[in-house]
Amino acid sequence: MIRINENYLKLTSSYLFVEIAKRVADFQKQNPDKEIIRLGIGDVTRPLPKACVDAFAKGVAEMGAEGSFRGYGPEQGYAFLREQIAKTDYKSRGVDIHADEIFISDGSKCDTGNIQELFANDISVAVPDPVYPVYVDTNVMAGRSGYSADGRYGGFVYLEGNSANGFVPSPPSGRADLIYLCFPNNPTGAVATKAQLKEWVKYAKTHKALILFDAAYEAFITDKSIPHSIYEIQGAKDVAIEFRSFSKTAGFTGTRCAFTVIPSTCKAYDKDGNWHLLHGMWNRRHSTKFNGVSYPVQRAAEAVYTGDGPAQVREIIDYYMANAKLIKEKMTSLGYNCTGGINGPYIWVECGSDSWSFFDMLLSKAGVVCTPGAGFGRCGEGFIRISAFNSRENVERAMRKIEGAVK
Amino acid sequence: MIRINENYLKLTSSYLFVEIAKRVADFQKQNPDKEIIRLGIGDVTRPLPKACVDAFAKGVAEMGAEGSFRGYGPEQGYAFLREQIAKTDYKSRGVDIHADEIFISDGSKCDTGNIQELFANDISVAVPDPVYPVYVDTNVMAGRSGYSADGRYGGFVYLEGNSANGFVPSPPSGRADLIYLCFPNNPTGAVATKAQLKEWVKYAKTHKALILFDAAYEAFITDKSIPHSIYEIQGAKDVAIEFRSFSKTAGFTGTRCAFTVIPSTCKAYDKDGNWHLLHGMWNRRHSTKFNGVSYPVQRAAEAVYTGDGPAQVREIIDYYMANAKLIKEKMTSLGYNCTGGINGPYIWVECGSDSWSFFDMLLSKAGVVCTPGAGFGRCGEGFIRISAFNSRENVERAMRKIEGAVK
Repeated sequence: MIRINENYLKLTSSYLFVEIAKRVADFQKQNPDKEIIRLGIGDVTRPLPKACVDAFAKGVAEMGAEGSFRGYGPEQGYAFLREQIAKTDYKSRGVDIHADEIFISDGSKCDTGNIQELFANDISVAVPDPVYPVYVDTNVMAGRSGYSADGRYGGFVYLEGNSANGFVPSPPSGRADLIYLCFPNNPTGAVATKAQLKEWVKYAKTHKALILFDAAYEAFITDKSIPHSIYEIQGAKDVAIEFRSFSKTAGFTGTRCAFTVIPSTCKAYDKDGNWHLLHGMWNRRHSTKFNGVSYPVQRAAEAVYTGDGPAQVREIIDYYMANAKLIKEKMTSLGYNCTGGINGPYIWVECGSDSWSFFDMLLSKAGVVCTPGAGFGRCGEGFIRISAFNSRENVERAMRKIEGAVK
Repeated sequence: MIRINENYLKLTSSYLFVEIAKRVADFQKQNPDKEIIRLGIGDVTRPLPKACVDAFAKGVAEMGAEGSFRGYGPEQGYAFLREQIAKTDYKSRGVDIHADEIFISDGSKCDTGNIQELFANDISVAVPDPVYPVYVDTNVMAGRSGYSADGRYGGFVYLEGNSANGFVPSPPSGRADLIYLCFPNNPTGAVATKAQLKEWVKYAKTHKALILFDAAYEAFITDKSIPHSIYEIQGAKDVAIEFRSFSKTAGFTGTRCAFTVIPSTCKAYDKDGNWHLLHGMWNRRHSTKFNGVSYPVQRAAEAVYTGDGPAQVREIIDYYMANAKLIKEKMTSLGYNCTGGINGPYIWVECGSDSWSFFDMLLSKAGVVCTPGAGFGRCGEGFIRISAFNSRENVERAMRKIEGAVK
């Protein structure tokens, strides 16, 4: 008899965006003439940079011609892209990451979801709260949790982010073997300083733990003192894996390209305490279960680093960050405590009531859709997330409408 | 302490194509003036069909313009593609598969590798021999095998393909819960008749087993009596998942698009014997660990079904199958027993010596690279695989050279 992986039965329904969609649809039905402005979901809205479109189109044309057609590429990604990343994202910041330590993939969701396969099932997993749900759900599926009660799964170490710690949790006092960190943070927009990341690297070294560092939003950092990479911390290459994405950086959410860095010295241990290199393990996993990213897509990603690409990418990021500034200033002027919005495209607003009530109020009175913080975990209750991914006009209008609604 | 998934330590090195590359490089070094023709790896060589290139380019242009830009798409794939597949690949053959039973992905390697996550760890897994290594390795990684000895992992049920059964194994007499089948077969090119597939569906129904049916090569079937889909067998929708790919059909190995069909009635069981629908479980897995296929790639795949696409795809397949015919006829005329080459792009040649010796002889005497059958499993010993994926000119020249070498 074919039997299921019963860990799937532990999963609570992923209701957040479904519930948002339902409430918005209900409201729209009852108020068909009211405009709705969406600042909820974290999806980009600006077109791909021209440099990327041109390179993408050139890649497509190559696929249609004898002589330039390409079949299977390297599972790990083409050297032309891996070398640009190593040079521009790392070496230029004084971080010595080699091209062959970089694995190109079709998305950070996949990589942050799949990476846990490399580890034993009875390790202790630490996840932030509030949190990007993929870290949690993929470990539940793998059997590293108990059942859910009161909005939390048993068996995880929850790293609480709150106003007191500026939404940057410190290392736990007890054991954590696999630690998920995300800075600039989704959903709070908070960033970790070099000193704070040093504490985490020190913890990992001391406890032989591993940090999974999700830096999908690093391009949005404006404060020069904030690290873009965990590898800016000395010793991190032994104890951290880093995830990056072109999704938010260059508008690739519908184009699909990302990468994961596994330094050649990064280790984990077997039950006898012998170390094993994670680079080789991930290489085996990646080449067994993945067949590389579409060649034209990799050419589009390469253009992020060459010619007019960097300036065009910068322009898009600046555009969104000007939205973020506008949102943060308005919400602050209206008396709300806000985090984020300076080094990340999200503004985390303490709303003075429960998340869903505030969501409903904004929807009904202002026609603005945000994301209730409670959907990201227990510590998100009492907050909402506002996303800067929309047009300037829509953001300005949304802020005027929110002002009218809450004043 | 972060501990590894020790099942990875059971994996034997995936030496086949590495070893081939090494021997070819050594030969080339010693014989720098000798031409080498590669009929080894199963990768396409013809450019993408023009209809696909045009649709691909149009999709790219849309991504560069406000108004037509697309961010995150549905994880399961766009309806425009799922509906074409349901209509053209299934309904037109009398098989009632709905668009929402189809999951678009970036490759069958990913899907056939990831699907095992849905199942319990202590099920009995049946794999063919010879076999596409992904089925085996992904189950080893998940802990469903013992260690390897004499070229086989402990704990699997091996379904032996040999000359006696025409490389189409019958259902086992004992227990098998999860059964991998691949027809048209890689590496043998053999196909299963309707009667043979009926036996498998009957076995699955009787034993509450599940069939994973890899139909990546179905487009190469020329014999009208051979089923293209497992769902042409009555009752299969309850007990089978089907994998299909645009890789070989339309030259997408470097473009990346495939799909998996999980009928809404397809079931597996918990330890108490209650049934669960696999469609919902895969939907949860797919939307948690995957973020959809690149939009322009999905437009390119849609073009396989519309306008000039079908005729152009047919032309490419016919081109490769004419190569296959040529190879099969020549090898047969030289006295070798051959399987495949009629309904699949591979010719499986009984070489009269061990696989690697024949490989070395073909390389040194004819300058032709094939794939030693022993690399696909114990039952592959004594065979080689010749691939039809190359230009007509190269195939013709290769056959002349082989004739000269073995006569």
